[in-house]
Amino acid sequence: MSIRVGIAGYGNLGRGVECAVKHNPDMELKAVFTRRDPASVKILTESVSVYHIDAAEKLKDEIDVLIICGGSATDLPEQTPYFAQWFNVVDSFDTHARIPEHFANVDKAARESGHIGMISIGWDPGMFSLNRMYANAILTNGMDYTFWGKGVSQGHSDAIRRIEGVKNGKQYTIPVEAALESVRKGENPVLTTRQKHVRECFVVAEEGADLERIEREIKTMPNYFDEYDTTVHFITEEELLRDHSGIPHGGFVIRSGRTGWNDENSHVIEYSLKLDSNPEFTASVIVAYARAAYRMHQEGQTGCKTIFDVAPAYLSSFDGEYLRAHML
Amino acid sequence: MSIRVGIAGYGNLGRGVECAVKHNPDMELKAVFTRRDPASVKILTESVSVYHIDAAEKLKDEIDVLIICGGSATDLPEQTPYFAQWFNVVDSFDTHARIPEHFANVDKAARESGHIGMISIGWDPGMFSLNRMYANAILTNGMDYTFWGKGVSQGHSDAIRRIEGVKNGKQYTIPVEAALESVRKGENPVLTTRQKHVRECFVVAEEGADLERIEREIKTMPNYFDEYDTTVHFITEEELLRDHSGIPHGGFVIRSGRTGWNDENSHVIEYSLKLDSNPEFTASVIVAYARAAYRMHQEGQTGCKTIFDVAPAYLSSFDGEYLRAHML
Repeated sequence: MSIRVGIAGYGNLGRGVECAVKHNPDMELKAVFTRRDPASVKILTESVSVYHIDAAEKLKDEIDVLIICGGSATDLPEQTPYFAQWFNVVDSFDTHARIPEHFANVDKAARESGHIGMISIGWDPGMFSLNRMYANAILTNGMDYTFWGKGVSQGHSDAIRRIEGVKNGKQYTIPVEAALESVRKGENPVLTTRQKHVRECFVVAEEGADLERIEREIKTMPNYFDEYDTTVHFITEEELLRDHSGIPHGGFVIRSGRTGWNDENSHVIEYSLKLDSNPEFTASVIVAYARAAYRMHQEGQTGCKTIFDVAPAYLSSFDGEYLRAHML
Repeated sequence: MSIRVGIAGYGNLGRGVECAVKHNPDMELKAVFTRRDPASVKILTESVSVYHIDAAEKLKDEIDVLIICGGSATDLPEQTPYFAQWFNVVDSFDTHARIPEHFANVDKAARESGHIGMISIGWDPGMFSLNRMYANAILTNGMDYTFWGKGVSQGHSDAIRRIEGVKNGKQYTIPVEAALESVRKGENPVLTTRQKHVRECFVVAEEGADLERIEREIKTMPNYFDEYDTTVHFITEEELLRDHSGIPHGGFVIRSGRTGWNDENSHVIEYSLKLDSNPEFTASVIVAYARAAYRMHQEGQTGCKTIFDVAPAYLSSFDGEYLRAHML
């Protein structure tokens, strides 16, 4: 019997989840829920219906795991605990500072209803957190480094587009190669913000706009750009659409540490991602953890879980015997 | 209260475990067991006693986890199930083909005695297996690549030393950079043995030995060298000791895969290790899993576990609240 999946929220991430379910033959998309008029939402899976999100409760016996694809700022803090009263839920809540509070809310709701609430699943938070944790547990005496990119930062792209005279724009975060190399050599450098990443902007200006002012406003923008070396390229709308319409991302989690009676040996653990599509990869991680949520619930577990709480075997469609024989 | 650790077998790995315990303040070395005359074994930790391995049973109430540091060929298949009758045990059994059988034996012994038996812990099998499994669960449509090195292969070094006229020797396994680059680009190459790794040998010949014959015998040795491009360097014993006495290793686990409704997007997940000391790193992984074995036993779990069965949080000395606030 397939694991029946529901999707709440149909943007880039929701569509990514739909694609990921297609890649997992033991799973089946059962319904998509939206806050929009359901008739206006066209999904990729022909046989599946789109419902208004207020109708979700009615399908509680037909869905094993509901994947909540809202935003972290206002949607998920409300939605994840709310839907945990009827469903096992998985979200990708990514406001690091508010995770403890979100955990407590989801834990309470999921325990009361006897469900699993899996939060902050994706790659950062998610696989990057997991790799930081594993590497810290192994090399207790060491230093952590996280680099992001090359990839599109949605927040920084939005910031550019708010500048007067800017019609459209996209921002890439790029790790500084020299910093990466030093970390990889185990040199344990102390790196400033400027030494870790550079920012590259592709900007479509409105006709007649003052390009020098736009460039200056970008480069000096507090928090977003002022602490970085930033490059600004002015391009046409056609070039932007042709060359910069993807949502690539990725990054590197590196820990270097020392072992030996007198710390005489050095080791470097590195985990990296190179992603054509940030939302589709995030969705692929989420769907694997939806399988885990289903199985943990089947075993009678309840409450909020993070990526740290899930034994790896729960993620795989293969059973333990197969995994031991073929992947260990 | 500290987790009390015992070490059975005091070679490179046992000494590595001793060093790793020193790096984990919540753990304490309680005893070292050896098959040799205990009086002849000098360990690094001054306050700890060395016992004959036959005396292990007597210390069963003083040790929380016994780490078994024997060889996979003949020691571990006997020792791990045997000691599981008195202790939670962890081993680094690495004969991939015999893992299912070893699992069954350890599982039976550990269930009967109510202990945890953690097998095949290290980096391959171990962290490499774990990363293969995670990457497969996330990118279901893709290809796996494992590269080893640059590092010393004990088996190949031994094979060189068995050749007539060879006094000493060391062999390095080295990944082919072009193959690595192709895999990283997501090109999904089909690679032969020869295309993935090269082998580099440093050989000390006996005086008057026929160097050409030695080189030929190495390069044509079935299974060990004949399928690889091999380089042989003749050096002096002094050079070997000066430049090649370390036990470095490492490698790369890479999975590339496609997502999207029509598989239109490509992703690459890479995990890599660069290790100054293979045994000390392996020991550091083992000690983290010893913590997990202790905790799982405290919770009432029993039986054989592999790296796939252990929720990551069990490995960390930090509690869930700390991990969520600082590492997620």
